[in-house]
Amino acid sequence: MTSTAADPLPSWNDGEAKRRIVAFVEKVTKEGSRDFLPPAERIAVFDNDGTLWPENPMPFQAAFAIDELKRCILTEPQLATDPMVRAALAGDFARLLEGEHFDGLMQVLALTHAGMTVDEFRDAVEAWLGSAKHPRYGRPYDELTYQPMQELLRYLREMGFKNFIVSGGGADFMRVWVERVYGIPPERVVGSTAATTFELRDSGPVLTKTLDYLFVNDKKGKPPGIHQFIGRRPTVCCGNSDGDHAMLQYTTIDNPRPSFGLIVHHTDGEREYAYDVETKSTGKLVEALEEALRRGWLVVDMKQDWNVVFRPE
Amino acid sequence: MTSTAADPLPSWNDGEAKRRIVAFVEKVTKEGSRDFLPPAERIAVFDNDGTLWPENPMPFQAAFAIDELKRCILTEPQLATDPMVRAALAGDFARLLEGEHFDGLMQVLALTHAGMTVDEFRDAVEAWLGSAKHPRYGRPYDELTYQPMQELLRYLREMGFKNFIVSGGGADFMRVWVERVYGIPPERVVGSTAATTFELRDSGPVLTKTLDYLFVNDKKGKPPGIHQFIGRRPTVCCGNSDGDHAMLQYTTIDNPRPSFGLIVHHTDGEREYAYDVETKSTGKLVEALEEALRRGWLVVDMKQDWNVVFRPE
Repeated sequence: MTSTAADPLPSWNDGEAKRRIVAFVEKVTKEGSRDFLPPAERIAVFDNDGTLWPENPMPFQAAFAIDELKRCILTEPQLATDPMVRAALAGDFARLLEGEHFDGLMQVLALTHAGMTVDEFRDAVEAWLGSAKHPRYGRPYDELTYQPMQELLRYLREMGFKNFIVSGGGADFMRVWVERVYGIPPERVVGSTAATTFELRDSGPVLTKTLDYLFVNDKKGKPPGIHQFIGRRPTVCCGNSDGDHAMLQYTTIDNPRPSFGLIVHHTDGEREYAYDVETKSTGKLVEALEEALRRGWLVVDMKQDWNVVFRPE
Repeated sequence: MTSTAADPLPSWNDGEAKRRIVAFVEKVTKEGSRDFLPPAERIAVFDNDGTLWPENPMPFQAAFAIDELKRCILTEPQLATDPMVRAALAGDFARLLEGEHFDGLMQVLALTHAGMTVDEFRDAVEAWLGSAKHPRYGRPYDELTYQPMQELLRYLREMGFKNFIVSGGGADFMRVWVERVYGIPPERVVGSTAATTFELRDSGPVLTKTLDYLFVNDKKGKPPGIHQFIGRRPTVCCGNSDGDHAMLQYTTIDNPRPSFGLIVHHTDGEREYAYDVETKSTGKLVEALEEALRRGWLVVDMKQDWNVVFRPE
């Protein structure tokens, strides 16, 4: 089970980024190597928004929530008493992103999702993915994953790594499509969650989404989320923003095992979006980028390092 | 990959229980069968205490917590101001088990564990497993797993099932030894959890256990726990008490997929402990047993159905 015969990363240009990835994977998977990682320790964590697919012009789940809100408001006009709901309907996205954890956005997500059964929610996500199109690319959102990162997921999987998503996005939102889109099963998704309640109705067992125990899996919440869901320290961590800073530290600093940190730097305004310090959406990248040099994290320059950005149609 | 050539369940006596298990597994794993379960849907959930190992004379984690308490009290005598700590030190186990979720026990667990780093906690569990012995059997606790259930775990795994632990026990406690003892990796453990906090200290990244956001994965909490961690409805559920009632319902009632419910009934006072309505420890079994007949859940009679109880020394 080796991918070295063929090029495992054809969408990556030859250069330092690709060389460093392949060198790491080869050294830790070579039996007898001083840096050999036992298969159980091959745990790779990936942020989603901005790392595996874009987070512009807004995180895709926010686009879903706003579309849902427009649908809900027809039957539940009282929702509009919430100032964040009004901000969302008015397209005031900056307002939604204020606060430590994009508090307004979280509020809108919670309001539109609470009270639904998990099956209803899944159906709503599937219906949305089947109809909504990205405003710039005109393609369904789940077709807009980064081809080079898909290749990295596949390469790591073939080399015995378990890939996990560790994202601020909602676990219930991602689990609908991660297996089909990334080959990652639902139980390997660590996301933001709130409690559900269990009832046995005449129609059968039902789980209903609530607003209780909201856990936002972002920033300093990511290492605790990894601990809670995976229970083991990762050895590969890929992110793109300061939201991933803590999990990059957790993965790589003083790890007794060989480890690898990677930051996707959004440098390509032509093919995608260019931002770091200043962003119109989520994905601000300042502190993690500053620390990358010192820690030896690989900073991927999308413009230079990728010969293709999106999955071919 | 089939176990049908040799007997996959040698510690199970020939009889209805063994026949039903094998018949279910064979029908859902046979390509082209009307009841075929795609590998992704082969999700088996197992309670731990009383299902995979005993919960007498007290849940093993409670024995750990009391031993820890005796150690902690030497340096933190103020702990003894807590009435539940005093009950634990006095061996008043009935008091600890009062309340909806064994509130006193949870309190003691939380008090003894909070403030430790997750690494310190893991070391404490390992040290305890290396030295403590079960008062009746005189063997280390982690050697006292039920051999017939070990065979069931292995049989399901070989037939393409993913086995998960879904227990009221602490996730951090179980994850220390589940891979070695059950062949189940840490990320397939759904247990009770509390939040940890992340810090980057001079010595490196540190996760510290807290008392916040305590989630007790028991009774009606089990289906939400399954949803939160696994994100998919199980098709096999094994339990032994009313604490597993909700997850048996969630797995089997109106499941569009073929499903299997199993209850380990503690009928063997000679080799193990005999209890159901009346128990001196946890593990009360009344409602789930009453519903078992109606729902077709397999009730395993430990005395009749198992020719060996524990893993051989």
